[in-house]
Amino acid sequence: MQCVAIVGTGLIGASFGLALKAAGFNGSILGVSSPAAAAEALECGAIDEVLPLEAAVPQADWVFLAQTISRILETIPRLEPLVRPTALITDAGSTKRRIVARAQAHLSRGLFLGAHPMAGKEARGARAAEATLFAGRPYLLTPEPAATGADPRVAEFVGWVRAIGARPIVLTPERHDRLVAAVSHLPQLASTAMAAALEQMPDHAEFPAVAGPGLVDSTRLALSSFEVWGDILATNADSIDACLAMLEANIARLRASLRAASLEPDFNLANRFARRLRPSDQPAEG
Amino acid sequence: MQCVAIVGTGLIGASFGLALKAAGFNGSILGVSSPAAAAEALECGAIDEVLPLEAAVPQADWVFLAQTISRILETIPRLEPLVRPTALITDAGSTKRRIVARAQAHLSRGLFLGAHPMAGKEARGARAAEATLFAGRPYLLTPEPAATGADPRVAEFVGWVRAIGARPIVLTPERHDRLVAAVSHLPQLASTAMAAALEQMPDHAEFPAVAGPGLVDSTRLALSSFEVWGDILATNADSIDACLAMLEANIARLRASLRAASLEPDFNLANRFARRLRPSDQPAEG
Repeated sequence: MQCVAIVGTGLIGASFGLALKAAGFNGSILGVSSPAAAAEALECGAIDEVLPLEAAVPQADWVFLAQTISRILETIPRLEPLVRPTALITDAGSTKRRIVARAQAHLSRGLFLGAHPMAGKEARGARAAEATLFAGRPYLLTPEPAATGADPRVAEFVGWVRAIGARPIVLTPERHDRLVAAVSHLPQLASTAMAAALEQMPDHAEFPAVAGPGLVDSTRLALSSFEVWGDILATNADSIDACLAMLEANIARLRASLRAASLEPDFNLANRFARRLRPSDQPAEG
Repeated sequence: MQCVAIVGTGLIGASFGLALKAAGFNGSILGVSSPAAAAEALECGAIDEVLPLEAAVPQADWVFLAQTISRILETIPRLEPLVRPTALITDAGSTKRRIVARAQAHLSRGLFLGAHPMAGKEARGARAAEATLFAGRPYLLTPEPAATGADPRVAEFVGWVRAIGARPIVLTPERHDRLVAAVSHLPQLASTAMAAALEQMPDHAEFPAVAGPGLVDSTRLALSSFEVWGDILATNADSIDACLAMLEANIARLRASLRAASLEPDFNLANRFARRLRPSDQPAEG
């Protein structure tokens, strides 16, 4: 693997370039992006050269699609006439069913490996990129069943995922989308719904002065932009709706139990989940 | 002010003792607590001596009640025969209407100043205490109208609140309880409801392996124990229910809009609130 084309050099794409270099990759990294995004990625050293898609893809051993989901869906059919038959095409889209189906329908050349690094931060763009963004984070992979383990290109990619410090986890696209609805899309929408409710309250202007650190933590995700999330929600609505229905039912149950002081079972359930997420911590005393 | 009695030497009580000392208080700090809690507070230097309530309160210029709300409600009537007429009695309870009403009904001696430092962390007990726990945090005060500014004991207490780095904010007990329902109790129950929903899902055992940092942040409050929260919810149920009703309505609206991709207004509202909470940050790009 001597040449990587990163399509979309925002936070994820640029961080992937930096991470590969930090892990010892010494081939060339081509960037395909808008002029402004490409210039930022070049400046921070995440890519070596800026090229249009038509010039970059034919040279690439790997094509890494780090755009928004709707742009990935648009790009996939454009790769077909450009990509080398020996190339690996992978992506970083936050949902997998639609992207994998698009690749199956439109790509007969190259090997497509659906992927979703579970990393990110509020700040966007290559200027916020970090070589360590993926370190310690899950890197979800949805290879076609025939490709699992068998294809040396998948094994090579998994080797680099480990080299950048991430934890590769193999799932079907369906299972991926169900799991991320719970661990990522539900927390996002819970934070959005709560911050929107606070903003709608008549005395909202006074909240920042009296807020403690708990509110800051629980509205961090509410900073996320709809530009990114619109695509995620549209391509995983069924799984997300099932999660939101459970949250809505739990809030209704809390309301019903509020005066009866019978919320202890809910706190215990919530404690159990929150502790299991933090296996390395001391168990909280309360 | 030469002698402070801290009643309840857990995280908040012990941190208050450490903070006073760090701010230059050189009188004596008496601790009233269970033997185990008092021993921990003594060991970490938050208090100088352990005494029963009946021995500590008659010596104290300040009585600082840092117990759970229901214990504070029990302690207040016991202070009446013990407290010096010149003493200031204050508390750290998370709701204020019930506590202030109890003090008005049962304390004719001393001056009661309802208070609520907006500080805390998951870990409990004096072992987790920090002199800097209150630094930069709001310290909500609900003085009786007659006492505001006029009584030198209130002015002296406010001076020490500033000395430990906190920001004093004066409110009525009613306004306090409405504001904290929004900025503290709502985020707590949103986190509890979400973590409980996740724990109830059939594939919950797989979530920790694939979770990113967003889920960890948004379940931090779900670690809170019902032992502390039961009292808070029971003494502020009306305000909390109004907030939960708005959250429930927003989740229902998000569900209805999910497939129509019309969630942008909710994201924008949520963005606006979350950014206003972080005035010192760079505005997030998205």
